[in-house]
Amino acid sequence: MVFQQQLNFATRGRSTTNITNEIQQIVAKSSISIGTCHVFVQHTSASLMLCENADPDVQIDMETYMQHIVPDGDAMFLHQDEGPDDMSAHIRTVLTNPDVTLPVSNGCCDLGIWQGLFLWEHRTHPHQRRVIVTVQGE
Amino acid sequence: MVFQQQLNFATRGRSTTNITNEIQQIVAKSSISIGTCHVFVQHTSASLMLCENADPDVQIDMETYMQHIVPDGDAMFLHQDEGPDDMSAHIRTVLTNPDVTLPVSNGCCDLGIWQGLFLWEHRTHPHQRRVIVTVQGE
Amino acid sequence: MVFQQQLNFATRGRSTTNITNEIQQIVAKSSISIGTCHVFVQHTSASLMLCENADPDVQIDMETYMQHIVPDGDAMFLHQDEGPDDMSAHIRTVLTNPDVTLPVSNGCCDLGIWQGLFLWEHRTHPHQRRVIVTVQGE
Repeated sequence: MVFQQQLNFATRGRSTTNITNEIQQIVAKSSISIGTCHVFVQHTSASLMLCENADPDVQIDMETYMQHIVPDGDAMFLHQDEGPDDMSAHIRTVLTNPDVTLPVSNGCCDLGIWQGLFLWEHRTHPHQRRVIVTVQGE
Repeated sequence: MVFQQQLNFATRGRSTTNITNEIQQIVAKSSISIGTCHVFVQHTSASLMLCENADPDVQIDMETYMQHIVPDGDAMFLHQDEGPDDMSAHIRTVLTNPDVTLPVSNGCCDLGIWQGLFLWEHRTHPHQRRVIVTVQGE
Repeated sequence: MVFQQQLNFATRGRSTTNITNEIQQIVAKSSISIGTCHVFVQHTSASLMLCENADPDVQIDMETYMQHIVPDGDAMFLHQDEGPDDMSAHIRTVLTNPDVTLPVSNGCCDLGIWQGLFLWEHRTHPHQRRVIVTVQGE
């Protein structure tokens, strides 16, 4: 069995959003009890991250770290068409990935107790982001 | 067809463990001949890595490199609740990922000759780690 | 349904190659209309990257950035058997990943308009690279 649905998120600019509940709802709707859930961002400047879901400081530190290793508007970058966050957003997406696959057990994504799935907007301005969720199994 | 099994690993603290054989045994047990094998760590401070499996120096260098780009206990991090390896372990997990999918061909994971799958413990102290393996195909 | 095929690419040494068309052709051949397409590189010094496909400067900047954070032949690395690009190629592969899964909708990979799938050769000399593509769904 295959079940697929598109989700749309309006981001407020550079930030992370916990989308675990939205994904779990799609898995519930699929009626698939065991298998996998694939989540995919159709963009090159937003990504997905499985990360600690309890302390908000972890998300702040992830952002601090990314700005530290991927400096916005660095002179080494040629591609600056859309501003200093343009090329850095592409690199951040490649380092953290726009796709993730989760196991499905007993009709829901079988995450660890501290694991949340976050959509990470890497551009500084708000964007509309499309996410394709595909559940496969029995 | 779907086959799913949980594996448990006791790590000895920060280090990598080659878990390729354990994964291949589950694929053999599944009786699935062609498809995919999804491997998932249910934690936010341990990850999976496909890496060169012949020279142990490669694993040492991977660890050296990670300590180089993700400094433990750095003053830029707010989240230090469980010690200097807490936030760095979360970042290392995000950079290297807790999920991977392998192709299954002829009843086993179709890896390259130099590819091994390693479980990477990022905390300095030993931990119990749960890994969910889901094999799908025909 | 499962459809699997191996692709072979001759790289010209360190560079990226847009392989989106080759992957789309396999999905079309599979006759699978909805599901997932898993792409896997059977090597530890070449990887896959979903990235902006319009401005060639983005690929140049990705390479510039990788050389910036993963210096070739750095004295911190023990594993230098095959030259200064040996260990750095392994690290680059781990940071960017040899596997990716794409959604399949209406009989093709459902990518965003600016998303291309690139094979990234991390060694400086030309290599033969094997890629296993597995399409699953209905």
